[in-house]
Amino acid sequence: MKAKCPEDSKTIMTDLVLPSETNPLNNLFGGELLARMDRAASIAARRHSRRIVVTASVNHVAFNRSVPLGSVVTVEAKVSRAFRSSMEIYLDVWIDDRESGERSRANEAIYTFVAVDDSGRPVRIPELIPETEEEKIRFDGALRRKQLSLVLAGKMKPADATELKALFDEK
Amino acid sequence: MKAKCPEDSKTIMTDLVLPSETNPLNNLFGGELLARMDRAASIAARRHSRRIVVTASVNHVAFNRSVPLGSVVTVEAKVSRAFRSSMEIYLDVWIDDRESGERSRANEAIYTFVAVDDSGRPVRIPELIPETEEEKIRFDGALRRKQLSLVLAGKMKPADATELKALFDEK
Amino acid sequence: MKAKCPEDSKTIMTDLVLPSETNPLNNLFGGELLARMDRAASIAARRHSRRIVVTASVNHVAFNRSVPLGSVVTVEAKVSRAFRSSMEIYLDVWIDDRESGERSRANEAIYTFVAVDDSGRPVRIPELIPETEEEKIRFDGALRRKQLSLVLAGKMKPADATELKALFDEK
Amino acid sequence: MKAKCPEDSKTIMTDLVLPSETNPLNNLFGGELLARMDRAASIAARRHSRRIVVTASVNHVAFNRSVPLGSVVTVEAKVSRAFRSSMEIYLDVWIDDRESGERSRANEAIYTFVAVDDSGRPVRIPELIPETEEEKIRFDGALRRKQLSLVLAGKMKPADATELKALFDEK
Amino acid sequence: MKAKCPEDSKTIMTDLVLPSETNPLNNLFGGELLARMDRAASIAARRHSRRIVVTASVNHVAFNRSVPLGSVVTVEAKVSRAFRSSMEIYLDVWIDDRESGERSRANEAIYTFVAVDDSGRPVRIPELIPETEEEKIRFDGALRRKQLSLVLAGKMKPADATELKALFDEK
Amino acid sequence: MKAKCPEDSKTIMTDLVLPSETNPLNNLFGGELLARMDRAASIAARRHSRRIVVTASVNHVAFNRSVPLGSVVTVEAKVSRAFRSSMEIYLDVWIDDRESGERSRANEAIYTFVAVDDSGRPVRIPELIPETEEEKIRFDGALRRKQLSLVLAGKMKPADATELKALFDEK
Repeated sequence: MKAKCPEDSKTIMTDLVLPSETNPLNNLFGGELLARMDRAASIAARRHSRRIVVTASVNHVAFNRSVPLGSVVTVEAKVSRAFRSSMEIYLDVWIDDRESGERSRANEAIYTFVAVDDSGRPVRIPELIPETEEEKIRFDGALRRKQLSLVLAGKMKPADATELKALFDEK
Repeated sequence: MKAKCPEDSKTIMTDLVLPSETNPLNNLFGGELLARMDRAASIAARRHSRRIVVTASVNHVAFNRSVPLGSVVTVEAKVSRAFRSSMEIYLDVWIDDRESGERSRANEAIYTFVAVDDSGRPVRIPELIPETEEEKIRFDGALRRKQLSLVLAGKMKPADATELKALFDEK
Repeated sequence: MKAKCPEDSKTIMTDLVLPSETNPLNNLFGGELLARMDRAASIAARRHSRRIVVTASVNHVAFNRSVPLGSVVTVEAKVSRAFRSSMEIYLDVWIDDRESGERSRANEAIYTFVAVDDSGRPVRIPELIPETEEEKIRFDGALRRKQLSLVLAGKMKPADATELKALFDEK
Repeated sequence: MKAKCPEDSKTIMTDLVLPSETNPLNNLFGGELLARMDRAASIAARRHSRRIVVTASVNHVAFNRSVPLGSVVTVEAKVSRAFRSSMEIYLDVWIDDRESGERSRANEAIYTFVAVDDSGRPVRIPELIPETEEEKIRFDGALRRKQLSLVLAGKMKPADATELKALFDEK
Repeated sequence: MKAKCPEDSKTIMTDLVLPSETNPLNNLFGGELLARMDRAASIAARRHSRRIVVTASVNHVAFNRSVPLGSVVTVEAKVSRAFRSSMEIYLDVWIDDRESGERSRANEAIYTFVAVDDSGRPVRIPELIPETEEEKIRFDGALRRKQLSLVLAGKMKPADATELKALFDEK
Repeated sequence: MKAKCPEDSKTIMTDLVLPSETNPLNNLFGGELLARMDRAASIAARRHSRRIVVTASVNHVAFNRSVPLGSVVTVEAKVSRAFRSSMEIYLDVWIDDRESGERSRANEAIYTFVAVDDSGRPVRIPELIPETEEEKIRFDGALRRKQLSLVLAGKMKPADATELKALFDEK
């Protein structure tokens, strides 16, 4: 299997915020954005692996900015690191400003997908080779996030999470 | 404001998995479950605060079990800890077994909501007093999760996250 | 087949009223509430019978109170009587008051479901044994309602509907 | 206000049965058909009254035939009797046979709507004058159904439901 | 195969404009109307051919009038000409005026469908015999439109489009 | 108003084909694709004009390839020519091949949008300056298509459609 770069899986999903997706303050429901990001991330994971993919986990997601009804929202997804059969997908969410037309960042999120065969068993996927500076930073962070995920799920002892532990020892 | 207990905000959302919500393996999309949990959590947050509430963040969510088309899924949400204007909501997801009728746990998730007034400004909310053993464990864990969230968002130094740091020093 | 009690099939479906479900007065469409109640009733029927179930009929439903956009609506369904292969499901609909947080009754409805096998043929289902006072009253009323349903469908002569006839002779 | 005939409010809604509307047997959910009939009936009520209309009640509905995925379903709604501000709407549901192209009757249903002003208060509506034989039969039956509805809602004593009582005395 | 007339395929789809289908001016999205017309046209094509049908093309569609939220919209579809395995479907869209109750024309559109077998291969369909004056005019125009479609798709040389060419030579 | 180039309005909408959007052959409904293209085109039109935009017309659209359930579909929209207040939007539709991962062209379409103010009146929009070879070809074709649209709508005499007429005289 030939290695790929993040650009190969890049997925852009630009769409409107429709009335059926908004809360009483006329902003996009957090849950709707989570669902859109899941669809975009699943396409990126499929582009990297050319396999059926299923959501394995969602990393911590913070909703820093509200997204008003009628907004143009762009979700951009790229594979940030490939493990044996799982992939970390990094998502950036942008909103177009109505006046200036400038896009500003609304959110970031990280999803993990697993590539499976027709009966749902994990399969090997190609390696990922980061290219840009940002891709390299995200690639490096992915291992730390994987350990955090295993610790939180009770599948790894905090003491064994060397990458993560360093974070707290550092200062 | 009178303090409340988790039972006061308990929200049960039982529903079917419909064909429009499934992936190529005929299982519920992760993103759809995230959206349902967001709606259930928002109702629990509203029941605790009697205010407009908006999603602030989603904690790490792992999808351990696939949920097949036609399943009966129950999402149960309860406020697990109340801060000044934000609330942590703990969600348990159950599936009915078709044969035995037994419910088995499919997922857990933790969302944070903020109570706001009509113009979107945070408002004070009642205190939460945990009652059962499980509620107390979740209440205690909430502070550690809040620190983790602040650290991940770059709003708190790892060294100041005392509750969290202890986790790694322990062993 | 072991007899069951109404509590075994109890199904709670709490959800928001979304903008796509409202009429020009910004209230929930009657038809949307009918569809939600059908889903909740089908789950209760499945929990009692552990079979595929299909809607057989809907009893008279009155919409006494309008349900505004953004409301929290709770549909609660329980099997009220089991016949050979059909079940009567009793539904109670509640709305949370935004100020006081009190739930108040918005509607009642009665659906009938039939349990079927994979080819759609009716199958035997467990007996139902009512427990609470309310469950016993609903259990007793179910026979009268079944007769009314058969009379209205032209499948029973009014004179043979003994339970129903009594209603009019009584006073 | 000029009287109208049933033809003036006749509403035809032909549409496909889509995958998102079907149950595990691949047939249209009862609840979806109830929602479609509600929309068709509301249009017929609006055409008669030229007012905002809200669902007041749904009469007994029997689902005699299943409606498979991909079917062409026609819902036809006509006002069958107008009272002071409420209207009874009679609905006929037809399915196209795939082979012969013949339409066959799948269901009948009766809904009641109330015409209201902008603040939700009932308003006077035009009289209805039935024309065909079938329209006259439905017009006559509407009074009996209204009494049944009032009796079931506990708003009329069975003894006062003269039209209804006759049904049981007849034989 | 017996020839049919346009009336045999006539399909009427009356429905409301719901909040989830409207743009920031509170009017029906053009794209939603295109989707409704596609469904109505597919039913008309199926009624003519009694076969599975797929959209082949959409002729030029102009949106002359906006359709506000809450409107009653009627889409009427009839086969206007049948070729070997393709059919032209003519659609008329009407809106009910809220005050007068009069229906006024909002749009016209022309879709082409192809009848296929279970594996997607085109099959022969019955001939169409127009009856009314309008049906004859639409029948005659269909050939010209077919040529235009072939020319635009680069499958016919403008010089061979005799019917179409005449249009420009005429005056 | 500063002139813009097509790249400034470029909009990419990549998404999955979900079960609720497919016909009996398990392919995307033509009408659903028309609706997606309308949303993508409206965003491109908004990015060019920074105004509210409404669909004015859809040019001839041919559906040459079916798009199966589960496909990854990319709709790409760019303004191809700006007139006084209307814009032509050119859309390219691509599908990912499941095996090779190659994207292949599935469709092309052309929509026209008009920029309006809050009360729906047309407003001036910036000029468009094409840059690439393809953009120049599309820019040139836009005038011919506008004439065709006016002729078909009966708003221009064929004899006055000089650009269009040339097409038929050419050979």
